[in-house]
This record gives sequence, structure tokens and C-alpha cells, in this order.
Amino acid sequence: MDQELIIKLIELLGTFAFAISGIRHAAAKRFDWFGGYVCGVAVAIGGGTIRDVMLGTTPFWMTNAIYLICTAVALLTVVLFGKWMEPLKNAWFVFDTLGLALFTIAGIQKSLAFDQPFWVAIIMGCITGSAGGVIRDVLLNNEPVIFHKEIYAMACVIGGVAYWGLAELGVAAEISAVVSFIVTCLIRFLAVRYHLSLPVLKEK
Amino acid sequence: MDQELIIKLIELLGTFAFAISGIRHAAAKRFDWFGGYVCGVAVAIGGGTIRDVMLGTTPFWMTNAIYLICTAVALLTVVLFGKWMEPLKNAWFVFDTLGLALFTIAGIQKSLAFDQPFWVAIIMGCITGSAGGVIRDVLLNNEPVIFHKEIYAMACVIGGVAYWGLAELGVAAEISAVVSFIVTCLIRFLAVRYHLSLPVLKEK
Amino acid sequence: MDQELIIKLIELLGTFAFAISGIRHAAAKRFDWFGGYVCGVAVAIGGGTIRDVMLGTTPFWMTNAIYLICTAVALLTVVLFGKWMEPLKNAWFVFDTLGLALFTIAGIQKSLAFDQPFWVAIIMGCITGSAGGVIRDVLLNNEPVIFHKEIYAMACVIGGVAYWGLAELGVAAEISAVVSFIVTCLIRFLAVRYHLSLPVLKEK
Repeated sequence: MDQELIIKLIELLGTFAFAISGIRHAAAKRFDWFGGYVCGVAVAIGGGTIRDVMLGTTPFWMTNAIYLICTAVALLTVVLFGKWMEPLKNAWFVFDTLGLALFTIAGIQKSLAFDQPFWVAIIMGCITGSAGGVIRDVLLNNEPVIFHKEIYAMACVIGGVAYWGLAELGVAAEISAVVSFIVTCLIRFLAVRYHLSLPVLKEK
Repeated sequence: MDQELIIKLIELLGTFAFAISGIRHAAAKRFDWFGGYVCGVAVAIGGGTIRDVMLGTTPFWMTNAIYLICTAVALLTVVLFGKWMEPLKNAWFVFDTLGLALFTIAGIQKSLAFDQPFWVAIIMGCITGSAGGVIRDVLLNNEPVIFHKEIYAMACVIGGVAYWGLAELGVAAEISAVVSFIVTCLIRFLAVRYHLSLPVLKEK
Repeated sequence: MDQELIIKLIELLGTFAFAISGIRHAAAKRFDWFGGYVCGVAVAIGGGTIRDVMLGTTPFWMTNAIYLICTAVALLTVVLFGKWMEPLKNAWFVFDTLGLALFTIAGIQKSLAFDQPFWVAIIMGCITGSAGGVIRDVLLNNEPVIFHKEIYAMACVIGGVAYWGLAELGVAAEISAVVSFIVTCLIRFLAVRYHLSLPVLKEK
């Protein structure tokens, strides 16, 4: 009961932070409210939608209006309180990271529930967590940030591999999930704190 | 019978106008005939394809070749008569608007037929009408026009809400559809006539 | 037996060449290893994934890890031997063309197996062969190359039409496939050798 409540809360915080990220990037391009809403939605539900389409099931946001409502609240927040949001940068970063870790696990668990092997589940977890940001960047006509900045999607992958390893060792799914959650968050925090990034590909 | 003929005619005119829009944007980037055709197809069938994939059904254009043939005719028209098309600007605009309104209703009705709730149906209507133009802009490496110009997608949303409201009041589906069609067209015409657009998001 | 081995070999060579193309384009934009891998994956499996989603079946790469492993090997190859790859340009071109032709036929055959009419199958063949490169260019924030350079996707279409014509004449599927393969390769080789491209759309 308590546990479910915490998960639901993290999910909403994560969705909210993801939507905020989309809307603020849209603001930087001077999109209108509609454009901002679509970019917010893209980050908040884009990854999960790609996952669900590939799993052959109805996209999750079509079964519960909460995700689109949450994005609408995020839009309202940016419109009304946009100028006071800059100092809260660290809070958004924390929520975004919690969302990233939770969405990764949600993607893994849903894929496993659809009888996918673990390596597919990890990829789906990574897509759930990070593909929305790529769609946002494509819509904004930018190069996707996660392809050339601090470690982001790799945090999902490593968190997912931790989940897999523990599951293989016979650890209960709930404990594996919590450990995986912590691993993903930790890697992401360290990556930003110490500007860790993957090596850059060299031309020729 | 007559009614079906009118709907079919509007659908073809709309598809044609959507395809023309894709091809002319491609011409502005000096794409070749193939690139033009793909951009035309993207606008003409892109939105409906996303809708159908999300609804879990076969994309509509795979069941009837008319949409791709219509786009081929549009390509031929641009290639042969491109230089005479500029003065017809207003005609394209009218056809495009008729298409927008009809595709929105088609998207709503198909979603309802798949037992989706009305709020999902309205989103699907909006996607059917306006997502194709976004795909076009992504393929052309432009910022999507509908995110920062006159009201376009919001016309679909408001037309869809009108449909919903009337349906809730017990109005027959056909009448709701006609009213919704007129509402969408009207908003779009007014938006272009008076340069109405949504407020722009402010940076910080 | 021997024949299956040849097909498997061409498929792997093609996947490898497609992945290399994605990774090297990513390197030109100074993406990191993760970005390179995603671009490689996009080219190698993007087209087939769109096809499978439209056919309503599980994306092929989720049923066999070989495609992702092959892309990982391609990434390793670029990272370790990137500077020695330029002189091998012609080899990549040949592999890429073999892949293009094979993927086209695979797309056609899979679509026919799903009871699609031939005109849909040809489009699916073309998507299987060439949509991956478009996704790559979208992710890299470039205008899609195949919309304004030498004939590429049209080679798939013509190869597909050859397949169709022979099938209509009652020729066995295997022979039709081989002829179609040769036609696609030949057109692509001639297009690059003689800089053949489609006419460009004229503005206004």
C-alpha cells in the first residue's frame, strides 16, 4: 500500500519533470503553448509509447488520462511561474533522475510481463527512460542531447543490467528493482556531478 | 449515397491538398522527385498511420491504393504545372482546411469505433489532421510550422470538443460531425484571416 | 543449405555495412559512442522495424540478438580501426548495396507472407531497405540524403517491380528474388558510377 503510493508519487513527479523539460526546451525555441504542450507530451510519454507499440499493446497513456493532465499542469506551471523556475534547477534535475530510473524499471518489468527476454527488456527500459528526450530534440530541430553530453541513457542500461544480474542470482524482483533504481540514479548523479561522458567518436 | 459521394470527394481533395503541401515544401529544399513524393505521402497519410498504429490496426493506406495514387497525381501536377500554382494559393488553402476538418472527424470516428474514450478520440482526430505536417517538417529538417504559427492543430481540438459536447447532449452522430466540421473550418479560416495564434512561451 | 548460408552471410554483411554507415555519420557530428551505436542501430534495423510495426508483428530484431551484436561489432570496428577505413570505401559501398538489395527482397517476402498485396509489399521492401538511412539523418539533424542524391530508394522500387513482374509471369519465387536482387544492385551501381539522380523539384 505505502509502497504503491511511493511508486505512484515518483511516477507523477517523473512525468512532471519530463514534461517540464520538454516545455522549457520548446520555450527556448519560442514555440507557442501548443508546441510546448506537444514537446512536453513527447518527453513524458514518447519513450513508453514506442515501447508499447513494439510490444504490440495499446500505448499506456491511452488507458489513463493522468499523464496528459500532468503535462497540462506542467505547461500551466511554466506559463505562470516560468521566471521563478531557474533557481529550482536542482529540484528538476532530481525529479528528472527519479523519473528516468523509475521509467527504466517500468519498461523492464512491462517487457518481462510480455515474455520478452531480459536483453530486450533492458533495451525497452532504456527506450522508456530516454527516447522521449530524443523525440523532443527531433521536434525542436536540435541534435539529440543524449548523443553527446553526460551519460544519460547508459545509466538506464547499467541499471537494467544490475536488475538482470540480481534476478539471475535469484533475488526477489522487488529488491532487484530497488537496487536497479539506486544504481541508475547514482550513475546519473555522478555523471552530472563530475561531467562524466562517453568517449567521442573520432572522424576518420 | 449523395452524402457518401461528398465525403469521398472531400477526402480526395484533402489528400490531394495535403500531398501538394508536402511536395511544395520539398521543392523549396530542392529535393528530387522521390523526396517530394515521400514528403507528399508523409503529409497525406502520416497522421492517419500514427493513429492506426496506436489503435493497433493496419494503416489505412495499405488497404486502398487510392491515397498513394492521389499523391502521385499531386507530384505530377507540381512537376508539370508548378509555376502556375502560386495564384491558386487560396484554393489550396481551402482544400487543405477541408481536409484538416474531415481527417479530424475521421480520426475521431475511427477511434470511437475502436472503443476508445472520447478524450483519446479527440487526440487521435488531432493527430490524424495535423501530425502529417509535423513529419514533413522533421523530414525537411525544419522546425514544425504548427508549433509557432497560426492556430492549426487547436482547430482540430476545438472541433473535436464540439463533436463530443453534441454527442453528450444526445445529438445524432451525423449532425455532430457536420457541426464539428464547420467549427474546425471556421476556426482555421478565422485564424489565417486575422493572424490568430496562441501565445508564445517565454524563455525564463 | 548452401543457399541459406549465402543469404545469411549477405544479411550479416549488409547489417554490418548499414551499421557502419550510421556510426560514421555520427562520428562526423562528433557524437559519443552511445550516439554512434544508436545511429548504427537506426540504419541497421530502422527500416525493418517500421515494416514490422505496420504489418502488426513483433520487430524482427527482438527475436534474435544477432543484429544488435553485429552493430556492436561495427561500433568496435570504427572505434579501433576508424582511421584505416577510408581506403575501404569501395568495400563498404559494395556491402551496403548488397544489404540494400537483400533487405528489399526480405521486406517484400515478409509482406507477402502477411497476405499483403504486391504494391504494398514493394513499398515495404523499399522501407526495409532505405528508411533506416532516413531515421539516421533525422537523428543527426541532417536533410535525408536519399531525397536529393543519387538514386537509392528507387533502386529498391524497380527491383521490387521486377520481382512482381516475374511472379505475375509465373516464375518461381527464388528465381524472381535473384533477378530482383541483381536488378537492385545493378541500378545502384550504375547510379553511383554515372552520378544518376532523379530530376530536382523546381521552386515555383
